[in-house]
Amino acid sequence: MSAATGAHTGTAPPDPHLEAPEARLETVTFGPDKPLRLDSGENLSPVTLAYNTYGELNADKSNAVLICHALTMDQHVANAHPQTGKPGWWLRMVGPGRTIDTDRFFVICPNVIGGCQGSSGPTETNPATGKPYGLDFPVITIADMVRAQAMLLDHLGIETLFCAIGGSMGGMQVLEWASAYPERVFSAIPMATAARHSAQNIAFHEVGRQAIMADPDWHGGTYLDHGTRPTKGLAVARMAAHITYLSETALFRKFDRNLQDRDTLTYDFGAPDFQIESYLRHQGMTFVDRFDANSYLYITRAMDYFDLAAVHGGVLANAFKGTKTRFCVVSFTSDWHYPTAYNKQIVHALIAAGANVSFVEIETDKGHDAFLLDEPVMDDTLAGFIASAARQRGLT
Amino acid sequence: MSAATGAHTGTAPPDPHLEAPEARLETVTFGPDKPLRLDSGENLSPVTLAYNTYGELNADKSNAVLICHALTMDQHVANAHPQTGKPGWWLRMVGPGRTIDTDRFFVICPNVIGGCQGSSGPTETNPATGKPYGLDFPVITIADMVRAQAMLLDHLGIETLFCAIGGSMGGMQVLEWASAYPERVFSAIPMATAARHSAQNIAFHEVGRQAIMADPDWHGGTYLDHGTRPTKGLAVARMAAHITYLSETALFRKFDRNLQDRDTLTYDFGAPDFQIESYLRHQGMTFVDRFDANSYLYITRAMDYFDLAAVHGGVLANAFKGTKTRFCVVSFTSDWHYPTAYNKQIVHALIAAGANVSFVEIETDKGHDAFLLDEPVMDDTLAGFIASAARQRGLT
Repeated sequence: MSAATGAHTGTAPPDPHLEAPEARLETVTFGPDKPLRLDSGENLSPVTLAYNTYGELNADKSNAVLICHALTMDQHVANAHPQTGKPGWWLRMVGPGRTIDTDRFFVICPNVIGGCQGSSGPTETNPATGKPYGLDFPVITIADMVRAQAMLLDHLGIETLFCAIGGSMGGMQVLEWASAYPERVFSAIPMATAARHSAQNIAFHEVGRQAIMADPDWHGGTYLDHGTRPTKGLAVARMAAHITYLSETALFRKFDRNLQDRDTLTYDFGAPDFQIESYLRHQGMTFVDRFDANSYLYITRAMDYFDLAAVHGGVLANAFKGTKTRFCVVSFTSDWHYPTAYNKQIVHALIAAGANVSFVEIETDKGHDAFLLDEPVMDDTLAGFIASAARQRGLT
Repeated sequence: MSAATGAHTGTAPPDPHLEAPEARLETVTFGPDKPLRLDSGENLSPVTLAYNTYGELNADKSNAVLICHALTMDQHVANAHPQTGKPGWWLRMVGPGRTIDTDRFFVICPNVIGGCQGSSGPTETNPATGKPYGLDFPVITIADMVRAQAMLLDHLGIETLFCAIGGSMGGMQVLEWASAYPERVFSAIPMATAARHSAQNIAFHEVGRQAIMADPDWHGGTYLDHGTRPTKGLAVARMAAHITYLSETALFRKFDRNLQDRDTLTYDFGAPDFQIESYLRHQGMTFVDRFDANSYLYITRAMDYFDLAAVHGGVLANAFKGTKTRFCVVSFTSDWHYPTAYNKQIVHALIAAGANVSFVEIETDKGHDAFLLDEPVMDDTLAGFIASAARQRGLT
């Protein structure tokens, strides 16, 4: 689920010549006076949020757009990644004159707590020990991520978001935002997401976690103290997950049974025979350069715990009772990770709650990752919804 | 893809009180005078095949049924497994008075070469070194497996099989049998299978192979020399593959988000929260007791190499030109591993080749593993086809 995905599956990657909006890379730390209350019952303190902003906040602070990132993404939504140098993961969507127009909106993208790009997470120093948290970091939830983001908005003096938008785990955060802080979300765009993680979703995540924990370099989560990193296990986790982000049709279209750099089968285990093998290995190898294994455990666990109906008496519509937020739910026909059926459950609940909701299922063979890729119908859909919401919000 | 699957997904497992037919556990070794010619160009010698038989061969040797097993199965199709003590993996199908009636048919089930239950494979001793083959065992193909089985039939004095039947990789062997030895196969039942492994199929196998190879106890394939076994890597491989054998609907029906032995989330990484996690871990742990990691590499590679059209000028129908074999192709609606579309490609090719072919798509939510489970329509379909073929064969 990286910008690199597009590059490797042959879909147009962000044009490296596409102008990146000016990014402000910020960090805020909330001290002992502002602990983060967690769903587990624990308090997290201090709490640091690393976040990027683009564009300018207007005088009445009504033009803020919050972008919530997916499992393996981060706050570098529209600027070159400081570690990899790659273009921002949604550069095609965010910038001057683009769908999320940085000439009009003040765009905020925070790294989730539990992440590994500067926000509080298992790689950060545990003040109680002076060593990296590792598994001493408390287990967090999607609601905890959102609660931390609400503290960030308070810090920025923003009462109400013009829009909260995100795909995949980003969509979960958008749903949680609209549910927990309905008066703070004028419009919401959850994309390619789910209101509850299914048994199959959990199963794939569990495979990834077991792959990481099986790596002896994981050392029970204390690998940073040992000067190692469980890169092999994390790469296997990434490979397994990555298959779920692409459709069977897209894999056929891009790779089929094409051989890697040769005309015949190798009859050997030394080198990959098929391009799809080589592609997956590359995905695994490059992922470990920019992501932390314990963060992968924490964030997948947060997603697995997500069940918005369960915390509202088992009825999803209750999560949105009386909402005035305008919703636009987007799904993709070939997404089998969070299929249209999961997104429709959200739409049905919103309708039952009397919400203002648009729903668009976009015809594509690109699978779950379609929300990151070149999908003109998606662009048109979002542009239309945002324009309409902006008019209603009095943003001209 | 084990009989245990049924037990764990809640579908009726083989009734432990179901009578197991008398099994003969046999082994044959072909010496230097009879090397096995491999697709790689190498010769394998000696070649050992471990195989079980049930029932009696009739006087004119016309009642032999060959059962081809799937990736992780073996020759113990209808008898208790010598290692695990569990009932045979297709006991519900094979036995006196059952669909494959051991009172009428002489049933043969060989362990594939590359396997780990007594047939030549990477765990066996390399006569050149006196040590286990490990990765010095030659890479084998589905056609190689079938060529070895043809040597077994010669050894048994059986010219023509009444029927070749198998699901998943077993179905690939059935297709290869019908293509390579059309005059030796009176009827053929490929089930839940494919004539070519897709990019997605290869991708999942590659994840499994990488998980095994990432385990330091794998030792480049020489683990038996080191007194270790890459059980953690093999368990992860099994877990990833196992998800593909079950449908999303079956996972929902059986596990949904049910918690494991508790009422609330653990907020911890020590124990599984969800039953699906516990189930997958159990699948991984029990698999390593009965399966070899290098065999997993060899057999998955053989499946990935399988592309019956490619070796027939790119036209699948050419693989069956002029065939007189009677075919019954069976697929399952919720099988996303080898979906109905893959099975229909086989049917279309058979029709184009002018073959006698029945095709049944069975409505079920049980996914790929349905062919191993309690599916009355499958039973009726096979019983009808086998009865008709037996009449045509003059077996009364």
